Amino acid sequence: MSTLESRHLQGSNYVMSNGGGVASSTTHLLDFLEEPIPGVGTYDDFHTIDWVREKCKDRERHRKINSKKKESSWEFSKSVYDAWSGWLVVTLTGLASGALAGLIDIAADWLNDLKEGVCLSAMWFNHEQCCWTSNETTFAERDKCPQWKSWAELILGQAEIKTILSGFIIRGYLGKWTLLIKTITLVLAVASGLSLGKEGPLVHVACCCGNIFSYLFPKYSKNEAKKREVLSAASAAGVSVAFGAPIGGVLFSLEEVSYYFPLKTLWRSFFAALVAAFVLRSINPFGNSRLVLFYVEYHTPWYLFELLPFILLGVFGGLWGAFFIRANIAWCRRRKSTRFGKYPVLEVILVTAITAVVAFPNPYTRQNTSMLIKELFTDCGPLESSQLCQYRSQMNGSKAFNETPNRPSAPGVYAAMWQLCLALIFKVVITIFTFGLKVPSGLFIPSMAIGAIAGRIVGIAMEQLAYYHHDWFIFKEWCEVGADCITPGLYAMVGAAACLGGVTRMTVSLVVIVFELTGGLEYIVPLMAAVMTSKWVGDAFGRAGIYESHIRLNGYPFLDAKEEFTHTTLAREVMRPRRSDPPLAVLTQDDLSVEELQAVISETSYNGFPVIVSKESQRLVGFALRRDITIAIENARRKQEGIVLASRVYFTQHAPTLPADSPRPLKLRSILDMSPFTVTDHTPMEIVVDIFRKLGLRQCLVTHNGRLLGIITKKDILRHMAQMANQDPDTIMFN
Amino acid sequence: MSTLESRHLQGSNYVMSNGGGVASSTTHLLDFLEEPIPGVGTYDDFHTIDWVREKCKDRERHRKINSKKKESSWEFSKSVYDAWSGWLVVTLTGLASGALAGLIDIAADWLNDLKEGVCLSAMWFNHEQCCWTSNETTFAERDKCPQWKSWAELILGQAEIKTILSGFIIRGYLGKWTLLIKTITLVLAVASGLSLGKEGPLVHVACCCGNIFSYLFPKYSKNEAKKREVLSAASAAGVSVAFGAPIGGVLFSLEEVSYYFPLKTLWRSFFAALVAAFVLRSINPFGNSRLVLFYVEYHTPWYLFELLPFILLGVFGGLWGAFFIRANIAWCRRRKSTRFGKYPVLEVILVTAITAVVAFPNPYTRQNTSMLIKELFTDCGPLESSQLCQYRSQMNGSKAFNETPNRPSAPGVYAAMWQLCLALIFKVVITIFTFGLKVPSGLFIPSMAIGAIAGRIVGIAMEQLAYYHHDWFIFKEWCEVGADCITPGLYAMVGAAACLGGVTRMTVSLVVIVFELTGGLEYIVPLMAAVMTSKWVGDAFGRAGIYESHIRLNGYPFLDAKEEFTHTTLAREVMRPRRSDPPLAVLTQDDLSVEELQAVISETSYNGFPVIVSKESQRLVGFALRRDITIAIENARRKQEGIVLASRVYFTQHAPTLPADSPRPLKLRSILDMSPFTVTDHTPMEIVVDIFRKLGLRQCLVTHNGRLLGIITKKDILRHMAQMANQDPDTIMFN
Repeated sequence: MSTLESRHLQGSNYVMSNGGGVASSTTHLLDFLEEPIPGVGTYDDFHTIDWVREKCKDRERHRKINSKKKESSWEFSKSVYDAWSGWLVVTLTGLASGALAGLIDIAADWLNDLKEGVCLSAMWFNHEQCCWTSNETTFAERDKCPQWKSWAELILGQAEIKTILSGFIIRGYLGKWTLLIKTITLVLAVASGLSLGKEGPLVHVACCCGNIFSYLFPKYSKNEAKKREVLSAASAAGVSVAFGAPIGGVLFSLEEVSYYFPLKTLWRSFFAALVAAFVLRSINPFGNSRLVLFYVEYHTPWYLFELLPFILLGVFGGLWGAFFIRANIAWCRRRKSTRFGKYPVLEVILVTAITAVVAFPNPYTRQNTSMLIKELFTDCGPLESSQLCQYRSQMNGSKAFNETPNRPSAPGVYAAMWQLCLALIFKVVITIFTFGLKVPSGLFIPSMAIGAIAGRIVGIAMEQLAYYHHDWFIFKEWCEVGADCITPGLYAMVGAAACLGGVTRMTVSLVVIVFELTGGLEYIVPLMAAVMTSKWVGDAFGRAGIYESHIRLNGYPFLDAKEEFTHTTLAREVMRPRRSDPPLAVLTQDDLSVEELQAVISETSYNGFPVIVSKESQRLVGFALRRDITIAIENARRKQEGIVLASRVYFTQHAPTLPADSPRPLKLRSILDMSPFTVTDHTPMEIVVDIFRKLGLRQCLVTHNGRLLGIITKKDILRHMAQMANQDPDTIMFN
Repeated sequence: MSTLESRHLQGSNYVMSNGGGVASSTTHLLDFLEEPIPGVGTYDDFHTIDWVREKCKDRERHRKINSKKKESSWEFSKSVYDAWSGWLVVTLTGLASGALAGLIDIAADWLNDLKEGVCLSAMWFNHEQCCWTSNETTFAERDKCPQWKSWAELILGQAEIKTILSGFIIRGYLGKWTLLIKTITLVLAVASGLSLGKEGPLVHVACCCGNIFSYLFPKYSKNEAKKREVLSAASAAGVSVAFGAPIGGVLFSLEEVSYYFPLKTLWRSFFAALVAAFVLRSINPFGNSRLVLFYVEYHTPWYLFELLPFILLGVFGGLWGAFFIRANIAWCRRRKSTRFGKYPVLEVILVTAITAVVAFPNPYTRQNTSMLIKELFTDCGPLESSQLCQYRSQMNGSKAFNETPNRPSAPGVYAAMWQLCLALIFKVVITIFTFGLKVPSGLFIPSMAIGAIAGRIVGIAMEQLAYYHHDWFIFKEWCEVGADCITPGLYAMVGAAACLGGVTRMTVSLVVIVFELTGGLEYIVPLMAAVMTSKWVGDAFGRAGIYESHIRLNGYPFLDAKEEFTHTTLAREVMRPRRSDPPLAVLTQDDLSVEELQAVISETSYNGFPVIVSKESQRLVGFALRRDITIAIENARRKQEGIVLASRVYFTQHAPTLPADSPRPLKLRSILDMSPFTVTDHTPMEIVVDIFRKLGLRQCLVTHNGRLLGIITKKDILRHMAQMANQDPDTIMFN
């Protein structure tokens, strides 16, 4: 029965420490209220936020408001205002995003007209060239041209937004100046003929709105985690207005952009997307009240056999995506590393000039990309005057025009096919060089155009095949002579979805966006088949989509939720200090002086330090951040009397017993995080990575049998992952 | 400079323990391969799984296969098979779900016909009554009637599936017998006139398929976490076939059903939903090749002012949802606690009889609910012969019929309005008593019917208002005399979405499902407005949807991801042992005998025991599960010689030094979890709850300054949450 006895002993042991703990906790809470040191709990630029701490801060604030609620009607209305401020800020963001998107559309159209009125000497020159090559510009343009320099310094968009949402601080990236410049340059870029879409910049514009409005509410401006909820909603609103696809926008934000996505955010994003789409619809920039951008209506169902060409289009989309990502990243890397990258304005002018010159002769590249997609998606009806629909009439009279069965192609279609092939090659090449220019640019529209061209070519080929070989086994059953059994427009739609899927590696959100774009609910199976194939083929060449690749190129600390960590390393192999490193910088809880503490801080560059009971036991007490310690010491030396360099610093509840003549000690318990995350040294890294991802940690301490061994930060994990993938770990630059 | 020195000391201390650790880790892995004790790592019935452990097990298995891959072509093909088995199992599940759904539809139709041919004496009797009240049944029915007893014992559906997906073991709930009985009874239930939908049972049927197919692949059958990925995909397939809504199914699985939803699951669910929908479309049970169940096409846009009635419908939906949940739960609780619940068959017969008798006189309750919804959604066109469309013709000739402007109502419409009001009351009452019967039942169709009736009533009222008061300010601007400005069918659609939203509290997935059901992409804003309002109103009366309420009623351990934990409690206040409790049952790492260990196990009922270094230090080494210890001891006593009751048990790497005559010691390191999750006693419970939810933990150990204090299990958290909400904590029954 010795076991029972021993357990009893342990028990009393435990009860003691537990009892002591309860008392200290209450006082700890009091401490917290006692000394709110200004600046503690904020972040430096280019640092990662600590999600857990931010969420705790918010709950603390929430509770404070709730407990005060019943004191007075003023406090009560304050609490109501607080509860609704989340909805208010997403409403404002949605309103502003929708209004700005309408403004951009209208301004781009207006500029388009203006341009044609001014650059008489060269009608096919677009605005930028016009503005840079000739000095005879109107006031409006002269006013805007100096902006070139400033917007050339702006960086891309989507990749940065994704990194910010994962909990990274980039100051000024979402400010009001960025919003202004981005809006103006987006107008210019859309009005130019560059191979770019507007969804990326519109997401950025919406996020700027979200960020600016969140400053109106301390709940959001003072909490980095809460702010990211607003930004997630804003990115949904951005996609929503870019395509008139509110549901697709929410899913895009969920699948592609956001890192931390609680269900509340889902509803708010949904609401922001709804408001933004509604405002855009009310402004009605395109003059038709349809929310659906490329509305299609096909009159024939699809047949099982057609899945084969659809899957082939999926393969094409996957290959294009993989090729595009590699080529674009290689080009961006070259731009970064060579002297060429120092002349971004020159590059923009060059690409614009080449685009204009090469695109002009071909009607399919000359026209607006959205119009091109619309034409390619549209089925050949009796009213369709497009070159693509110049079939030879088989039957005499008007009947042939009404029924539009598959017919032999006329010279017009042959010519269109050639032009489409050339347009395809041109678009593929120019998009690689355009995405990554110092111009606000999105990828959706160019990718969809490439896919739509390829799809339409395949569709027409299938149609002619079915016409000339309608006795083949595969056509015989369902394709009678003269019947309309192949819809080339459907192929264009499937191709567009496949190419978009290949580049972005989205699946569900992509299909929803294509639905909302086209209204083609009946074609869910072809779309899904093509998108799945495209994703599989693309993933075979590399798992990262274009946005992840750009994040990696820029060295941002982004822990991708899609990549699985499959190595057998344990926490102890990744943690610092390594074997050859100097020992871990730790603080003891009650025997350091202010001077010693400052020495530790100045000699190291770590962001935080574990606090332990004593050097002998190495038992962990908590974690203190460098920034907080510095601020707290400065604050104490300025405000508290008697704090000198020799003052003892203590993190415990009660001051240590000191000699009678020693200076007043400094209590720093309020900045101590008493619930740091710990894992044991035996924990597999896959679990550690999971914890970091799901809880959004910045660092985690490693223990062995209750003793502190080391520390793992997000950067350590990213470096380890880069090393495991045989990449240079020093590409991870920020912490 | 004493600080630096001390840090150096700590450093060397650390390096020592780290060095020792690496060696032990390698051997630990060897241990693991050495002794795979059969049974270790499995779960008992009605227990919660440990997600982290399951995921680790799977990664271990994956790595083993990958490392063997290059050894031979057989191993290589095995690894390829393994990599594709996930897709294979979801494909099979999708195929089977689609086929079964088609079968159920066809069989229900067939039975419907058969019934009418047989029960000549009482044409309006439905199948169950026919089968129970008369003995003159055909062979087919006599064969099925004895099943009544067995399916009456079956429990509900959705709530259980949700609990299982959150990581709970209910054996036999997803087996082949359940599948068989559920399929047959679903046919009977659909063929009867009960106020129920088939989406719940179809989700269950699909999950049974997923479960059965996962037994073909050891990757899934042996890992409870992986199996839940298949089940998530299966539930998406279930919704997909219930409504022909593949995207809605995926979102439903994401928003409503699933607990653990990695992105890979999203794609697989998407695929399963696609396959299932495709199979159902190929079977084509309804004889039309439309995938869209309630296809609608309205000819007029909606106007801004109409948002007001839409929001009112949202309010109605929210009120109905809150009322239904309360009333249904109260009724189910009464059924559970009183003697009445002991006669489930009698109750089913009674409800069926009342339904049949009361429903018969009213044409809107007599007809099939799906047909009713379709009629209510449909706009009054020239070809519509429904009573709802009997307007008085204003203009003479056929022109009035072609243009269908808003017209004064005829007696037919008045009669229809009264009948609809009665139908609404009847449906509201009967649905409360039907959902929760021991019959497989879903809620979507009845809820939608209630909403559609209310919506149509509001729509017709609005229409007549606009007709008689077209000079009112609000109508003046956009509703000219004789113009068609109000679409009552749209109101029905919005009402249906609002009521469904009120009951289930879904948002995004609901709107997508309604889209896919109706193809009405243009009406996104009215739908969203109504659904959001409905959710807000419903949430004001209680946050839990119908499924969560049933989970709570049954006392399943489900940690809802939607509910926020907002109390200030710290981990130490929730952990066990409490102050008055006996001390925590712990094991020491190297000084227990087999007998003492068995005594600890038999004297307590805990699922696991922390292992510590020694009673004095209380430093935590790891965690051992009760089930694993029992199996390991039994196994050792059977297979290893020299293991007796007095044998020393050790969890350390090397055997402790023992006296020369002591029996052979038993090494149990292989069952020791050396990376148990720990939090400090100061950790706020909100963080602990977050960790449990996001990582899917079963238990977590609590430490203070490196010493073990106590343990928190999922059940402790649920009890604490129930206590905080002033509920009886003893309703949480399982662990």
